[in-house]
Amino acid sequence: MRFDGREKEQLRSIHIEKDYIKHAEGSVLISVGDTKVICTATIEEKVPPFMRNSGKGWITAEYSMLPRATEQRNIRESSRGKVTGRTMEIQRLIGRALRSVVDLEKVGERTIWIDCDVIQADGGTRTASITGAFVAMVLAFSKLIERNAISSYPLKDFLAATSVGVDEEHGPILDLNYVEDSKAEVDMNVVMTGKGEFVELQGTGEEATFSRKQLNDLLELAEKGIQELIQHQKEAIGEEISNQIMKA
Amino acid sequence: MRFDGREKEQLRSIHIEKDYIKHAEGSVLISVGDTKVICTATIEEKVPPFMRNSGKGWITAEYSMLPRATEQRNIRESSRGKVTGRTMEIQRLIGRALRSVVDLEKVGERTIWIDCDVIQADGGTRTASITGAFVAMVLAFSKLIERNAISSYPLKDFLAATSVGVDEEHGPILDLNYVEDSKAEVDMNVVMTGKGEFVELQGTGEEATFSRKQLNDLLELAEKGIQELIQHQKEAIGEEISNQIMKA
Amino acid sequence: MRFDGREKEQLRSIHIEKDYIKHAEGSVLISVGDTKVICTATIEEKVPPFMRNSGKGWITAEYSMLPRATEQRNIRESSRGKVTGRTMEIQRLIGRALRSVVDLEKVGERTIWIDCDVIQADGGTRTASITGAFVAMVLAFSKLIERNAISSYPLKDFLAATSVGVDEEHGPILDLNYVEDSKAEVDMNVVMTGKGEFVELQGTGEEATFSRKQLNDLLELAEKGIQELIQHQKEAIGEEISNQIMKA
Amino acid sequence: MRFDGREKEQLRSIHIEKDYIKHAEGSVLISVGDTKVICTATIEEKVPPFMRNSGKGWITAEYSMLPRATEQRNIRESSRGKVTGRTMEIQRLIGRALRSVVDLEKVGERTIWIDCDVIQADGGTRTASITGAFVAMVLAFSKLIERNAISSYPLKDFLAATSVGVDEEHGPILDLNYVEDSKAEVDMNVVMTGKGEFVELQGTGEEATFSRKQLNDLLELAEKGIQELIQHQKEAIGEEISNQIMKA
Amino acid sequence: MRFDGREKEQLRSIHIEKDYIKHAEGSVLISVGDTKVICTATIEEKVPPFMRNSGKGWITAEYSMLPRATEQRNIRESSRGKVTGRTMEIQRLIGRALRSVVDLEKVGERTIWIDCDVIQADGGTRTASITGAFVAMVLAFSKLIERNAISSYPLKDFLAATSVGVDEEHGPILDLNYVEDSKAEVDMNVVMTGKGEFVELQGTGEEATFSRKQLNDLLELAEKGIQELIQHQKEAIGEEISNQIMKA
Amino acid sequence: MRFDGREKEQLRSIHIEKDYIKHAEGSVLISVGDTKVICTATIEEKVPPFMRNSGKGWITAEYSMLPRATEQRNIRESSRGKVTGRTMEIQRLIGRALRSVVDLEKVGERTIWIDCDVIQADGGTRTASITGAFVAMVLAFSKLIERNAISSYPLKDFLAATSVGVDEEHGPILDLNYVEDSKAEVDMNVVMTGKGEFVELQGTGEEATFSRKQLNDLLELAEKGIQELIQHQKEAIGEEISNQIMKA
Repeated sequence: MRFDGREKEQLRSIHIEKDYIKHAEGSVLISVGDTKVICTATIEEKVPPFMRNSGKGWITAEYSMLPRATEQRNIRESSRGKVTGRTMEIQRLIGRALRSVVDLEKVGERTIWIDCDVIQADGGTRTASITGAFVAMVLAFSKLIERNAISSYPLKDFLAATSVGVDEEHGPILDLNYVEDSKAEVDMNVVMTGKGEFVELQGTGEEATFSRKQLNDLLELAEKGIQELIQHQKEAIGEEISNQIMKA
Repeated sequence: MRFDGREKEQLRSIHIEKDYIKHAEGSVLISVGDTKVICTATIEEKVPPFMRNSGKGWITAEYSMLPRATEQRNIRESSRGKVTGRTMEIQRLIGRALRSVVDLEKVGERTIWIDCDVIQADGGTRTASITGAFVAMVLAFSKLIERNAISSYPLKDFLAATSVGVDEEHGPILDLNYVEDSKAEVDMNVVMTGKGEFVELQGTGEEATFSRKQLNDLLELAEKGIQELIQHQKEAIGEEISNQIMKA
Repeated sequence: MRFDGREKEQLRSIHIEKDYIKHAEGSVLISVGDTKVICTATIEEKVPPFMRNSGKGWITAEYSMLPRATEQRNIRESSRGKVTGRTMEIQRLIGRALRSVVDLEKVGERTIWIDCDVIQADGGTRTASITGAFVAMVLAFSKLIERNAISSYPLKDFLAATSVGVDEEHGPILDLNYVEDSKAEVDMNVVMTGKGEFVELQGTGEEATFSRKQLNDLLELAEKGIQELIQHQKEAIGEEISNQIMKA
Repeated sequence: MRFDGREKEQLRSIHIEKDYIKHAEGSVLISVGDTKVICTATIEEKVPPFMRNSGKGWITAEYSMLPRATEQRNIRESSRGKVTGRTMEIQRLIGRALRSVVDLEKVGERTIWIDCDVIQADGGTRTASITGAFVAMVLAFSKLIERNAISSYPLKDFLAATSVGVDEEHGPILDLNYVEDSKAEVDMNVVMTGKGEFVELQGTGEEATFSRKQLNDLLELAEKGIQELIQHQKEAIGEEISNQIMKA
Repeated sequence: MRFDGREKEQLRSIHIEKDYIKHAEGSVLISVGDTKVICTATIEEKVPPFMRNSGKGWITAEYSMLPRATEQRNIRESSRGKVTGRTMEIQRLIGRALRSVVDLEKVGERTIWIDCDVIQADGGTRTASITGAFVAMVLAFSKLIERNAISSYPLKDFLAATSVGVDEEHGPILDLNYVEDSKAEVDMNVVMTGKGEFVELQGTGEEATFSRKQLNDLLELAEKGIQELIQHQKEAIGEEISNQIMKA
Repeated sequence: MRFDGREKEQLRSIHIEKDYIKHAEGSVLISVGDTKVICTATIEEKVPPFMRNSGKGWITAEYSMLPRATEQRNIRESSRGKVTGRTMEIQRLIGRALRSVVDLEKVGERTIWIDCDVIQADGGTRTASITGAFVAMVLAFSKLIERNAISSYPLKDFLAATSVGVDEEHGPILDLNYVEDSKAEVDMNVVMTGKGEFVELQGTGEEATFSRKQLNDLLELAEKGIQELIQHQKEAIGEEISNQIMKA
């Protein structure tokens, strides 16, 4: 048993609250244990310059943390005058991950802006962001369908993400909180589709290395966790829309 | 009756949720109608260079909006690489207002960092921030008392803020929401203490001017609204602490 | 008597030198005691993007201080790479104040750029800037009339500004110099029209508060001072143009 | 056969030219086909603030491209005034990868600055940078040994990196050049040690997904390529030093 | 005769007004025809890090233009967020030039900050800045002598600057105004000492070239002009101090 | 004899390697002793805004140093977030110098971007950059001729640059390396054409002054050095193209 009472292959408690921000086309507050992220999806009726006249849409993401989301207050990136490397890495990952399950041609020449703002952090903020942002994006697509701008969900599959890691005491564990993450020898973020295909795999030995055997154990845990997360997404979205997405 | 059904001198519905962010020394989620702001107070055991060796503490504030707090998504200040003039004006106001009721010598050589992050905006975000931040700051002072760092609340009085304005149709009105604010001819932000003293008064004719008579009407409305807001603060803080503050 | 020999309700000596910079469409050097500001008005034959095709003009202002305008040299904002919050607050105030007395439709789709550069500072630089900038703007409008671009002064009234404050020793005083400003318990900037209407009112208790009674005393002083300043503006502009403005 | 005549599991031609820059403690020019990177290692006799008094050293990396390293000239990051997200991601990866095989305690309280400057780019610049930087770092350690600052190579193993990907026509291929990289459905960067342990694994479906089977095929190719690259590193370093490193 | 009525070897009218800014240790308003520059010298009782513990002082300069100093309004460098290349070039030149005639050891470990702010520009702003800044610096040294911080003027000689150029119609001419400067084929800035030694020579063919013969003619003109400028400096400073400087 | 064995009027050994970077329209690696610069010329089929519809082309240059080009590692300008004054000065000089020998009308409405990246520095990097950039530019013009975009070399003459200086021990010397440059009392950069006309002359007394006699000696040395450098350029370019340029 882990120090917070979980089994090795157990996720933290998951809550996805829909339509959390009234102005946004799609929005959720996702909680993964004590990690809480507001994810919004905004529809903009144009694409960035490099996509113009391509007939295709674009998905882009931004990520940020409130200064006191963390144990120690961190300086605002707006005060620093620049976005940190960590933030850039995460927002590029979120955008890339979401694009992998979207049929951009069906979206049409519009941009979906995803904003993931961490209001409380306890490890796994980037994977919670992806899992929440997928739902916010689905809700925004619902708005486009309501407006008759598109005729069906331009999605190839569900998409969620979690972290796995190797812990000195417990070996491979699922969904690391902040304390576990700080001590893990190996840390891996996995983004997967509903059908169990990989979208993104980022494994890092933290001043350590890992073997093929360990890799395989971690991937198994991740797959199990992601299938559970997708169940939560389906509940949030509702059966009807979930079925429409799965038929696509 | 105003378009949202309120009387001219009626506040929107007010909720103050304490201890909203687990890491912060003090935190609230304040809702003033559809305006929602997370206010946190962080204790730092040092002061900025210009206050060193003064034996006094310091209060400083930062303010920001999530990109989709508003009807139209606005660009993050971290992406722009700089903080806008509007943001600077607001955060300077919040800090100045709070300092006016704090006995900085009693605080000792430490800084209270106030962070006001608007997660949903519908007018009056700066005044909601001040009203919420006062409570977050009180909670942080409670932590200092618990830690025996200070012996009593270093406060001279309660403090809250609201906006008043002149509407073409209704004349002077209290607590403007976004639509009312956009149409108002005169817009005034008032910060006041529990004893009804002014701390800050910022009145602007929006491409218009206003008379001494109008000014007096507006100040009356503001005073009434602020006394009600302070009642909400007292309920959030609890009777015991409120009494301690008022005795000071 | 104040330490510089003035009565409580006495302005410092005022000089407005017209056409101080040969290239600008309108310019003055205004001196309010030892505070000296070069104000220029530049006509640009286009408006910012948010005003395009509105048929209306725009007034915008920038404010800066030479590094050695002050007792201690201050770092150039160009060296810091950013404009401070104080500067932003002031330049937003100047622009807003001037727009309140201008009929933007009559200006036509052009921008008046106001530049206020403080070459020597002794308190009251923002109010001196407004008072001087009004004259520079009038001179620029004269150029537009000469060029037959507009047919009359697009002005609703005169406009000037001053500061008032509460001094520990003397109570309410008019037109604070730097030393008085540093010690004042309450500091208020007032912008008013020739007809005595308020345009902007910014009162601040400096780690203090103020009562309604004090507010009323301060507003009386401010009104008196502003009427005197407008006399100086009229002398600088000349009787003929002053009459044209007042008839508008 | 691939369009440049290579087999699927064939690296491009590899050259590592030692001591390319006379001022640096360690330096190489590494060529992987037409990709050319100058890697330098600089010894600084202090560590960043967060490592002070830890008794441990630090390795940090910076990465950049000359503007005309690429087919189209790209704007200098110094002209933009900020480093792009891609650059940040790469330089964080290089630093993290190198640290995984270094015994930071043995390094002592000093920083090794790694600079990877791409002078000509044809795909795989980040993996070439890691492979070259490892050699530059070894040469810098030699300098520290010569100076009697350390007594042996503070290294746990060799380290190199390559890319693998899934090509529509050929399936899994090793060491993608720019054209192959642009067309690949899956793109994976692998960093490995001499003993075949993983250090970093970054796999991305480019608007696509990949299966566990494909993952396994790609990892096999990567392992083969990396073992070859390490042979080139050993030749560059010379047998004597290579043996010292392997004994560690 | 030139278009403004001057002879080829004639300077524009020169005025140097001492003690123009009350707060600065040294200050002048220098006018060279319609070019007007406020030069101030500020004494700071420390040196930049690279000079610490050298026992020597430092002179550094900053240069700027008011936005409407020129025919067309130019954007403030503080709004751009960076200093232009032209400004950097000029301020480096001013600092270097002044340092060449100062005995930095005699100055002691303090910095003289020179600020040159062009309030009206009509060509030759950098050379007018040098000529004026020399006088402001002398006045600041007078303050140091008054304070008994130094015992004599730490100066090796007088210093002034002018521009010369080759005009299509008139050939070599002295002290170019803006119109002449825009049309000149060759443009040369010369900084010289009272004894006629060169300090700085910057000649540029503007999309043109120049011969050794032309160079010699230009240098002759410059020398003549600079000797006259130094006469104006001496008058501004007064005979007594001028004699002290020349004896050094 | 100088400390590296050279005569006073002797250049360091010069090598110009053509077509060093495969993607660029023109490129060289120029070595002047241990100073090594990669110079590339890029053709862009448009001009900057201020040149549009002028029918003329433009030449612009950027200059940078790799962090470890120097004895001490220097911080990247992209990390600082801004370009230093020194870099700006140098890149403005390179662009201006090249433009002086180019017939911009013949170039047509296109921009030639020159990039000079110093990979190893030992004094004279700006003059080596000019000498190398001229050759890179010629090679890019060859591409334009091949593409039938222009019919002949749009050049008025050859162009090269060197430094000269006054050394305490040896007097006037040619082509200073880093050590000599650091100790020189006078430092002069000279840019000259094949016909011996000056393009740019920048002489600086380094906390010293220089006489007309010294100036003349330095110019003689510079002319001799530049004629030799142009011989190296001709060899790199080949006789045929060199003759075409000289006929122009």
